[in-house]
This record gives sequence, C-alpha cells and structure tokens, in this order.
Amino acid sequence: MNPLLDFSRFRSNDDLGLALKTGSGRSVNKDGTFNVRRKGLPLVRSYELYHRLITMGGFKFLGLLLLGFLIANALFASIYLWIGMEHFVRPGGEGLLDRLLDAFFFSTQTLTTVGYGHISPKSHLVSAVAAFESLLGLLSFALATGLLYGRFSRPHAQMCFSHHALIAPYRGHTGFMFRFVNRRSNQLIEVEATVVFTLLDAATGNRQYFTLPLERSKINLFPTSWTVVHPIDEASPLHGLTAEDLRQAEAEFIILIKAFDDTFAQTIYQRTSYIADELLWGVRFRPMTSPAADGHLVMEVGLVDATEPG
Amino acid sequence: MNPLLDFSRFRSNDDLGLALKTGSGRSVNKDGTFNVRRKGLPLVRSYELYHRLITMGGFKFLGLLLLGFLIANALFASIYLWIGMEHFVRPGGEGLLDRLLDAFFFSTQTLTTVGYGHISPKSHLVSAVAAFESLLGLLSFALATGLLYGRFSRPHAQMCFSHHALIAPYRGHTGFMFRFVNRRSNQLIEVEATVVFTLLDAATGNRQYFTLPLERSKINLFPTSWTVVHPIDEASPLHGLTAEDLRQAEAEFIILIKAFDDTFAQTIYQRTSYIADELLWGVRFRPMTSPAADGHLVMEVGLVDATEPG
Amino acid sequence: MNPLLDFSRFRSNDDLGLALKTGSGRSVNKDGTFNVRRKGLPLVRSYELYHRLITMGGFKFLGLLLLGFLIANALFASIYLWIGMEHFVRPGGEGLLDRLLDAFFFSTQTLTTVGYGHISPKSHLVSAVAAFESLLGLLSFALATGLLYGRFSRPHAQMCFSHHALIAPYRGHTGFMFRFVNRRSNQLIEVEATVVFTLLDAATGNRQYFTLPLERSKINLFPTSWTVVHPIDEASPLHGLTAEDLRQAEAEFIILIKAFDDTFAQTIYQRTSYIADELLWGVRFRPMTSPAADGHLVMEVGLVDATEPG
Amino acid sequence: MNPLLDFSRFRSNDDLGLALKTGSGRSVNKDGTFNVRRKGLPLVRSYELYHRLITMGGFKFLGLLLLGFLIANALFASIYLWIGMEHFVRPGGEGLLDRLLDAFFFSTQTLTTVGYGHISPKSHLVSAVAAFESLLGLLSFALATGLLYGRFSRPHAQMCFSHHALIAPYRGHTGFMFRFVNRRSNQLIEVEATVVFTLLDAATGNRQYFTLPLERSKINLFPTSWTVVHPIDEASPLHGLTAEDLRQAEAEFIILIKAFDDTFAQTIYQRTSYIADELLWGVRFRPMTSPAADGHLVMEVGLVDATEPG
Repeated sequence: MNPLLDFSRFRSNDDLGLALKTGSGRSVNKDGTFNVRRKGLPLVRSYELYHRLITMGGFKFLGLLLLGFLIANALFASIYLWIGMEHFVRPGGEGLLDRLLDAFFFSTQTLTTVGYGHISPKSHLVSAVAAFESLLGLLSFALATGLLYGRFSRPHAQMCFSHHALIAPYRGHTGFMFRFVNRRSNQLIEVEATVVFTLLDAATGNRQYFTLPLERSKINLFPTSWTVVHPIDEASPLHGLTAEDLRQAEAEFIILIKAFDDTFAQTIYQRTSYIADELLWGVRFRPMTSPAADGHLVMEVGLVDATEPG
Repeated sequence: MNPLLDFSRFRSNDDLGLALKTGSGRSVNKDGTFNVRRKGLPLVRSYELYHRLITMGGFKFLGLLLLGFLIANALFASIYLWIGMEHFVRPGGEGLLDRLLDAFFFSTQTLTTVGYGHISPKSHLVSAVAAFESLLGLLSFALATGLLYGRFSRPHAQMCFSHHALIAPYRGHTGFMFRFVNRRSNQLIEVEATVVFTLLDAATGNRQYFTLPLERSKINLFPTSWTVVHPIDEASPLHGLTAEDLRQAEAEFIILIKAFDDTFAQTIYQRTSYIADELLWGVRFRPMTSPAADGHLVMEVGLVDATEPG
Repeated sequence: MNPLLDFSRFRSNDDLGLALKTGSGRSVNKDGTFNVRRKGLPLVRSYELYHRLITMGGFKFLGLLLLGFLIANALFASIYLWIGMEHFVRPGGEGLLDRLLDAFFFSTQTLTTVGYGHISPKSHLVSAVAAFESLLGLLSFALATGLLYGRFSRPHAQMCFSHHALIAPYRGHTGFMFRFVNRRSNQLIEVEATVVFTLLDAATGNRQYFTLPLERSKINLFPTSWTVVHPIDEASPLHGLTAEDLRQAEAEFIILIKAFDDTFAQTIYQRTSYIADELLWGVRFRPMTSPAADGHLVMEVGLVDATEPG
Repeated sequence: MNPLLDFSRFRSNDDLGLALKTGSGRSVNKDGTFNVRRKGLPLVRSYELYHRLITMGGFKFLGLLLLGFLIANALFASIYLWIGMEHFVRPGGEGLLDRLLDAFFFSTQTLTTVGYGHISPKSHLVSAVAAFESLLGLLSFALATGLLYGRFSRPHAQMCFSHHALIAPYRGHTGFMFRFVNRRSNQLIEVEATVVFTLLDAATGNRQYFTLPLERSKINLFPTSWTVVHPIDEASPLHGLTAEDLRQAEAEFIILIKAFDDTFAQTIYQRTSYIADELLWGVRFRPMTSPAADGHLVMEVGLVDATEPG
C-alpha cells in the first residue's frame, strides 16, 4: 500500500455530517445536491408541494397553471351541464357542443371574475355553484400571487464554478485551486469558502474527511472572480499524492460557499464538488478581466474554466 | 438519599431561562411548546389573530375562509333585503325565497367582483352599499393573499426526532443519545444541537439545569440523519444514575436544534424533550440508510426510532 | 460636590453612539424611540410613505384606504361628468344628482372591476378612461395586498417591560433590576439584554455612558419572564448613589433587548429606558407564575410591574 | 521616490477581494457599485429581469407597467379583429375605427376582468381567446403585486455620506474622518464601519490595500450622525503623506457600512468611496444637531457635508 494513503497521521474531520458511508460514487453532485433519496414519507405534503412549485422551471410552472385552469373549468362545466343549461340565460344554440362550450366559458368567466353577463345564472342552484367557483377563483389567484412572489424572491444559486479544479504551482508551492464568479448583477458580500477533501482510507476501507486549510477563506467584497487556493505543503493530506492515487481512492473535494446577497439581504449557500477526474494538473487559470476603454473593468464570465499552460 | 443525586458538586446552569419552578410535569412538550399559559392579555389582538391564521391546520383555515365568505354575504344580503328588492333590476320571482336568494347572490357577485349584471342596482342606495361591498371584497382577498403566502413561506418544523432517547454503550463509554432526520427535501445547513438535562435536586427540592457536553455539537451538512451523543463519563451529571433514579427525580432532557434552511434562507429552531419514561437502556439505533442500485443512498425516514439489541 | 459623582475613575463607554449632548430630558423614550427630529429631508419620499403605512394604527390605515377609494372615485366621476353622461348607456334619470351618482357608481364598479354592466360606456372616450381606471384599480389593490402583508409580517414590539426598575437587595448585594415578559404566543429564543447607564458628570457637565455588567446577559429560552439584574458592587458606577443623586444627575438607564422570533425567523430588537423618577427602592417583584390544576404553569401578564415589600 | 510611498514596511491586506488590478480610475463608485461589467451572460434571464424591475426608478416602473398594458391589449385587439368583429355582440358602429376600438376596449375589459358585458363574445372562438386573456390578466396582476411588494420591502440604501472626507487635527493627532446620517425614520442598530485604503505602490506599480484601524468601528444605536475616525499615527499608512502624494498614487478610501434595520429586521450593507480629490484638509465638521424648544433634539440632515475652519 502507498504509505501516503495511510491517513492515520491526520486527524480526520467528519464534522461535515456526511455519514454517507458509501464506498463509491460522488457524495455531492455538481449542482450541490446530495446523493440521498428519502423513503417512507407521506405522499401528499403541502410544504413539499410549495417547495416543488417554487423551485421548478418557469415554463413547467406556467404549464401547470394553465393545466390547472383548464381542469378546474372542465370540472365546473361538467357540474353546470349536469344541472342543465336550461338553468342559464344565454344567447347560444341548443346543440351539444354549444351547450358544452357555453358551460365551459361561463365557468371561465366566473373563475376569472370577468363576468360579462351575456351568459348568466337563471336558477339559484347555478348561482350557488357560481358563487363557490368565483370564491375558489379568487383564492387560486391569491395562491398564484404568493407562488409567483415566492419564486422570484427566494435566494438563487448564482455562483458559476470552474468546471475543473487545478493542482498546479502556486507561489513557490503546489496548490489545489478552483475559481468562481457571481453571474448576477446583484452584489455578494462577505463570501466564505470551505473545502472538504474526502477519500477512501486504503487501510480501513472507510471514507475519511479533511477540511483543507485555505490561503484565504473569506473576502469582504466580490466584484469579479475568486480563486480559492489550498497550498499543498507537507501538512496537507494531499501532499505527494498523484492523479492515479486520487482516482483509486475515489477522492472528492466538497466545496461549500456562503455569501450575503446585498440586494435581497439574504444569506446564500451554494455547494459543488470536484472528483479526481475533474482535476487538471500543471495548468493555470487565464485572467477573466481586462480594462475597457471607458475605465470600466470588463469580466468575461465564460472564461471561468479557461486555463493556460502553467 | 442517593449520594449521586446530590448535585452540589456540579455547577448548575440555569442560563436556559426556564425559571419554571414546577416540581412535576415536563417543562417542554414533545412538540417543543412550553407548559405555560399567559393570562391577562387583551382579548382581540390583530397580531395574535395573524399568528393563529398562519399556524392553524390547512383544512381549518380553508373552512374559516368559507365561513367568513358565507357570513359576509349573509350580512350584506340582509342589508339589501332591508333596503328592499324593488331597488334592484332582476329577472327573479317575488317569493320570499327568491328575493332572499337574489339578495344573497347579488352579494356574492359583488364581493367576488364577478358582477354578471343580470341582477344590478336600480337605486343609488344599493349602488353605494355595493361599492362598499366590492371594496371590502377586494381588501379581503388582498388579506387572503397575504395569509396564504405567510402560511407557505414561514419556516416549518421539519426535524423528525426519534421517539426514544437511548442510554447505551458508545465507543467504550456509555452515552446518552437520540437522533433526528430532516423529512423535507430542502437542505439544512450548519445544524447545531444543545441538550439541557434537568432534574429535581433531592436535597433542596429545586430543579437543577445542566447543559450536557456533546461529542459533537455542530455539523455543516445534514444529508441524512444525525445521532447526537453525550458521553456519560465521570464528569457527567448522569454518571451512575439508574432508570429508577431518573424517574424519581423527574429528569427531563430538553433538546434545542438550530439550523439554516438553504431553500428559504431562514434560520430555523426546533425543540423537543425526553423524560425518563422515554429512555431505552442498552439498545442501539438501527442504520437508516442503504445504497440503492443506481448509486444513490436511500434513507428510510420511518426507521428514525428503530433500535436493535446493543 | 459629591465625590461619588466624580466618574473620572470609571472608563466611560460611549460606544452606544448616543452623541446626543443634551443636558436634560430623556434620550430614549419609554417606547424605545429617540428624542431626535430630522430636518431638511425631501417632502415626498416613497420609502417613508411605505414605512408610515405599515407602522400606523390599524383603524387609521383602514380609514386611509377608504378615503383614498372615495377620492379616486370622486376624481374619476368628475372626469366622466366633464365628458358628459350622454356618453353612457344607463337606465338612470337626467337630474343632476342622478347623473352625478351614476358617474360615481360607474367609477366604483370600474375601479373594483365588478363591472355589472347596467351602466356601460357608449363612446370610445369613456371606454379609454375606464380602461385606465380599471388598470389603476388593479394596481392599487396590488399595492394594498403588499401593504397588508407588510403590516402583518413585519416584526412587532412584543416585550412588555415593568413600568418601574428596582434598586433593592439581591442575593446579599444590592441590585438594579427590571423585568419583562413576552406578551405574544410566539416563542422568543436567545434573548440578550444590554443596560447602559448615563448621567451628567458633575465635574464637566457632559453626559457619561456606562455599560452595566449584568448577572446574566443572555437566556436561551424565554417561556415566562426575565428579571435582568445589575449587581451594585464596588465596581459599579451606581455604588453609593442615592435616589436624590440620580435625580440631580439626570440619570437614565437605557435598555436594549435583542431576541430571535421563532415563528417568523426574524431577529427582533426592542428598547426602553428608566429615568430616576421611575426607580423604586427597597421593594421586590412579586412572582408572576403559579401552577394550574392541569399541570400547566399560568403566567399573569398584568403582574409584570407588581412589587411587594422587600 | 518618496520613501513614504514605499509600502513594503506595511502588511498589505487584500482580503477585500478587490483583485481589480486596474491602475487608474476609482474601484468603487460614489453609489457603492463597482467599476466592473460582466460579459458573456445569456441575454434573457428571469432573475435579472426581476432584479431590474424592483431596483429601477418608480416612474420608469409605472411607465413600463402602462406600456405593457397597452401592448398586451393591442395584441389581443389584433387577434379579435383578425377573428372578425361579427363574432361579438356589440352596440357600436361598423366603421374601421369603431371596430378597432371596440376590439381594443373589449380586450381591456377582459384583461382587467371588469367585464361590463355591453360588448360580449358571440362565438365560442372569441370566448376561448377571452378566457385565455382574462387568465393572463390575473397572472399579470399577481406578478405586479409581487413586484410592488418586492420593490417596497427590499432593503434600501439609506445612509447619506458627507461628500468630502477630512484629514484634520483630531484629539491631539491628525485623523482621516468622514460622517454619515440615516435619512430614514426607521432605526438602524449595531452599525459597523470598515475603511480600506488603497493606492498604487510606486515601487511595483501594483495596487495595495490596507484596512485602516478606526477609533471606533461599531456603535449600538444610531440616532443622529456618526463621524468615523482613523487616527493617523505613526503606524498608519497615511502617515506623512501629502495631498499631492495621494493624488499621484491614485489613492482611494473604500467605505463599507453594515447595519441592522430595526423596522424590517434586515441586515443592510452600504458602500461608498473617497478619492484624493474628495479630501478636505485642515477643516472640521460643523455640528448637525441643536436642541429644540420642546426638549427634542433637531438634526439638520442637509448639514452632513458642512465644515468649518478647524
């Protein structure tokens, strides 16, 4: 066994709470989620539903709203048809399609409270159903208002990480490094980084976790990009390991970023991870910024993963 | 008296603020509320009302909305009837029921602003009441929008605790331990635990409070479950106590959990407690996770209280 | 001069930022506001308007909404009258009052979007004004929704302080003490107290500020009441001072409370102050809690200021 | 070279994250934004859109709403015209303008859900389009509600800084100082200041960053104004530098203020900067407060930049 892979000389740090105990596969996905599935939860949970509705994609959300609108109207149209279209004052014809569509559009005009009145209830029974439908309509739109606001105002992942991490010369030493930018126009403040290195201990077969010391772990302002560096000195658990060592030990670097979003006064957390196959050796990051003619600095966000020979 | 129950050798920690001074009964209920009732408060307090409306169950809330809708319409219908239905343009009959229901449904069509117009005001007096009713309707639905959003967006209790705490062998020592899971799909970050042990001091008859040192009191990530452990070494106030001792001294373990909800950028607190009757001795927790075929880890939430012989 | 009033032996602490430099009058009012007025600000500031609207009393707020509704409708009614009521389809009479009220109620039916249709635009000019009015109506109610939610969800002052502070024997020493309760049913967590003592330095005529050390400055849970105590030992700037000394030196105790509101996940600050005339000497606070028959503890909120002979 | 401009004797502090590396121009603008432009981002990003809509000026926002309303109605009017106005029940004439405006106003009455009914759908095709339009209208107003609330409730820049910073005698030493006031009526609590001094190192041509120690860096309450002072003693990087030195070295003082807004329970950050041309030498700030007849203190906000001979 490679003696460098005997980590008993390091104090393992498992404060991370990642008691996953899976030998293989990454613990943290690129998008920061965990490789864990929950089982045995009740099927319908209003909170989860809300969570889904405000985190799903925008088009899917709009599609669901439209679908819900159609289903609700189809349902109420069925009720009106079942009561009978003779309970309505309406100019329309008596064919099935006419009656069906009149019922449907009376429903849409009631649910949205537009209420033109060219179709209107003749009997009290229809009035009662329509009263309930308009109440339901208003509550649904109250709900939609909350959901739309919830979707926009919740904190969003906004850091864009370099796809690769580098192990490369850095100020005389070798360093493990990655960088990221804020791709939003709102300001991030007091940005903190934590890097946890995890690998299989060849001796025991268990996963070990080490929090890596960083050259700098917090910056006050974050106008452009930040290259986070762990210097690989002799005290580092990475010291002396090769690309092959890391691959065999299923190494993973778990990245935790914490920041304060100035625009919305919210603390934001974002996670990602790098596995051994996502490391580049001996290259360095290309600069992302260049001065413009008008004195502004221009940052090319797409260059976040760009490297050049070290 | 059992000399182990003389706690004068420990420094009591009553920083908790639990100056409850009740000899018996639990201080903190299973759901984290306190056994305290407030008296002498004013009867109607808008803030308390809001608090009730956003914390009550969903069906109760919807029922209340419906009830309020019916009452408001009944009220306005009475006003319209009192003014007289001859003040309306309406197609309906002149029987009492017809007039009553026409008044009621004119009210619902006004409150929801659907306004078909088949019943409409003939006199200015009715127009004035209807103007006020439609304003009230819009404000009520503005209020409902706020309440619905408040209900969904407020932080929710989401930790599921093991029903029992264990006193069992743990890494060579004996330990007091319990565990909990996050039953939501949103991520909890920077989870902290505090355990306060309280019992009646046999010597003075007063309650004593001790903050128990934990093997680990904070984890950064919380993908699965966390077993919180207090090692019962010689410095522990639990050292040497039997199940019978704890029962007689009306012991209680008060649990405080603090976490950051990643999805909503909110700090969450949750409390629970274990009394002597909720302790199991000498058993250990069964694992809750197992690897799935596709590399994901599967956590069975229902197993949070499952134990097996130690 | 009373040598005890020479405070040069103490390190003055003016970190409070209260560079008010007023010789007389209290710096902090009972309700926590400062005795400062801002001058030279622009007259109309939307933010201040919002601030006013969500902090004013509930009845005043509703009155303003109603007033705004009436004014807006009066304004649009004037426009419709100016255009001429012959531009409307309407069943009403041709007297001035009839035309005036028809214009007004057409306006209310448009602003609230109820739109019965018994009065409706005949000319395109009226249609255009009505289109604008209904847009304005919807935006106004959107605004009202935000204001109502803002009013309910913002953090509220919820601590009820004893009207008097006491200087009385306390565990062998003398202590300065006051107490407060949470009068809401939501839980406060991690409550912190700061007490700043300020008085006129007889030697220089300047105000001095001292942060008083407290027996306990933070509690984790706050189920009932908290009596905050500053022990008046020899290191205290209060040591040896009489009621008359404090009155002459225009002494003031500024109280700062910080807490976390568990229900709304918000940090709350509250301030108050005690001047020399609000001190009671030699009495002690009466207990506020008593056990009920069902094992609950009952706290009588009205007793927060109740004292009994020491 | 001026030996005082050799900063190798100071430990440079670049923890600020301002790795801008631009030789000239200010790094932080007066309003706290950075001189950085992002390039290479996708064109349409819903989050950025939201960010823009809640941070733009009020009149611009209202103008956009009105424009959106007109465009949406013009679009739907085109659809109705294309279907043909013979599909409507309407009292209007048959001229082109009449048909066009009837289509437009049917659209406004549908989008705002006012629905008078004097123009109403005759065919099912028109009913279907109108149903979709009223749904769209309600969702748009749900969105507007969220935007309006987002605009008002987000934390606002509220500190008003003196336009100039001073370098002037201060308590025996010389000091760098600036001051600021809260121009809002809501209370700011726990206000913290950080001052970073940056200039071009004459030796290397690189920018150096130094966090300046402050006489006081945090105040608990902020009722009036706060003059932040950096004492220029021998340990200060400013020691011995002249106005001309600072100008040549393109010096800049970056100011970071952090505070807690008591009314909205939000942490607020604000930034500004002073360049060499914005320094005044040897003058001092005029007091901003004076006692009023009624015992209140009056603060003249407009005096924040007022100075007088030192």
